[in-house]
Amino acid sequence: MKRLSQATAKEMRSLIRRKKWDKPTAGLAMGYAQANLVILPGKYAFDFLLFCQRNPKPCPLIEVLESGRYRTGFLASNADVRTDIPKYNIYRKGKLEKTVKEIKRLWRDDFVTFLLGCSFSFEEALLRAKIPVRHIEENKNVPMYITNISCKPAGALHGPLVVTMRPLPPDKVVRATQITSRYAAVHGSPIHIGDPSKIGIKDLKKPDFGDPVTIRSEEIPVFWACGVTPQAVVMEAKPDFCITHAPGHMFIGDLLNEELATL
Amino acid sequence: MKRLSQATAKEMRSLIRRKKWDKPTAGLAMGYAQANLVILPGKYAFDFLLFCQRNPKPCPLIEVLESGRYRTGFLASNADVRTDIPKYNIYRKGKLEKTVKEIKRLWRDDFVTFLLGCSFSFEEALLRAKIPVRHIEENKNVPMYITNISCKPAGALHGPLVVTMRPLPPDKVVRATQITSRYAAVHGSPIHIGDPSKIGIKDLKKPDFGDPVTIRSEEIPVFWACGVTPQAVVMEAKPDFCITHAPGHMFIGDLLNEELATL
Repeated sequence: MKRLSQATAKEMRSLIRRKKWDKPTAGLAMGYAQANLVILPGKYAFDFLLFCQRNPKPCPLIEVLESGRYRTGFLASNADVRTDIPKYNIYRKGKLEKTVKEIKRLWRDDFVTFLLGCSFSFEEALLRAKIPVRHIEENKNVPMYITNISCKPAGALHGPLVVTMRPLPPDKVVRATQITSRYAAVHGSPIHIGDPSKIGIKDLKKPDFGDPVTIRSEEIPVFWACGVTPQAVVMEAKPDFCITHAPGHMFIGDLLNEELATL
Repeated sequence: MKRLSQATAKEMRSLIRRKKWDKPTAGLAMGYAQANLVILPGKYAFDFLLFCQRNPKPCPLIEVLESGRYRTGFLASNADVRTDIPKYNIYRKGKLEKTVKEIKRLWRDDFVTFLLGCSFSFEEALLRAKIPVRHIEENKNVPMYITNISCKPAGALHGPLVVTMRPLPPDKVVRATQITSRYAAVHGSPIHIGDPSKIGIKDLKKPDFGDPVTIRSEEIPVFWACGVTPQAVVMEAKPDFCITHAPGHMFIGDLLNEELATL
């Protein structure tokens, strides 16, 4: 892993394309932006694009490929979204049908591809500033919770905001807010700091997705909008067909995290 | 005008709706965000939304109203985009057909409405920081130039980036960059500082739109992406039908400029 953490995004995508890497991408090609994938038939594309426009914190769009196009141009130079992701989830009418390593044979001319920012980018920035990221320390998946905050609906798409939680020592909360504010393209600033019940979360020990992490007595839970939100919302809308990355198995772009930062 | 500069957005929209104000909106209801309007038939909506996503500096989307909807919900509470703008331009196949004071009778169920940020918002912030804004000082329209920078195309939509220019004393350039960077929802940071020939502008005295302004010998021209870009691009694509605000006759929202600012 040490070596692959130093690989370039292009090297990693080449390994993945040749089916030599089918595991999660956390920690690979450090410094390069990773992205969430959503592929939808054209008839759903306007609603989903509008949903992202209205809910930029959970759905920070980095690149959209028009009908039938599978080559990226912005996030990565000439990557192929049909082969360059380690694992894909195939959904029919909102139900997971199977998980596959490529989607060349499933490809259709009316597919529109959405690549959305991922919090891996700002976690790297937090770690560089010596701000602890508990689920990384404990080698777990980040804890995710369904809140009582509604996303702004768009067409047929609606649903609750899903958040991630990172517990922080009180003296790191402001700095973590400042750092993540720079990364609007990858969920940006927190959406809530402190009391989980204020956003409808009953028990931090029981996340809706991912793993619970240790929260020390003095620590404050800090909540960020989560990239699971658009997937959850799309699944709730039950489109005929939808392809996403398998959780944790992200698209690795040529853009650096730092290139996605503002100010 | 003194009194109307202190009016609320709601008061101004009420005057406009009752056809008691049909002049430009610059300087009215100071502090409230004003917005550009583009209304397109549904068949062009995805391409235009995608164009805005790909070109956020010239096309900073603040609100989109879905097919047939004419009531705003985000930028203003329950405003009517068919009546609440002083003057509308009606285009057929890319040609200006007429200018009207309301569009109730023209309304169609397939119209999608786009409201985009306007540089009035950041000019107010510049003035508050004692940074001179020349075209305001000289009571002119801002000078606008077509550059040799291409917007990222989307579907049928493509065209050059149009910019505004404000000449600044050298010791104000950094501060103006910082201030406008906070306003990503209204064109944000400059796209170029200095030599106009670097972005394909031959003669600052001959703007493509608006008025030339005085540039003093020591001053540096600073260029920002301009809200004329999406209109120019839409006109180049020649949709069957398109409605925009008449230049300078903007939609006045309830959101404050400060609410559109980041950090």
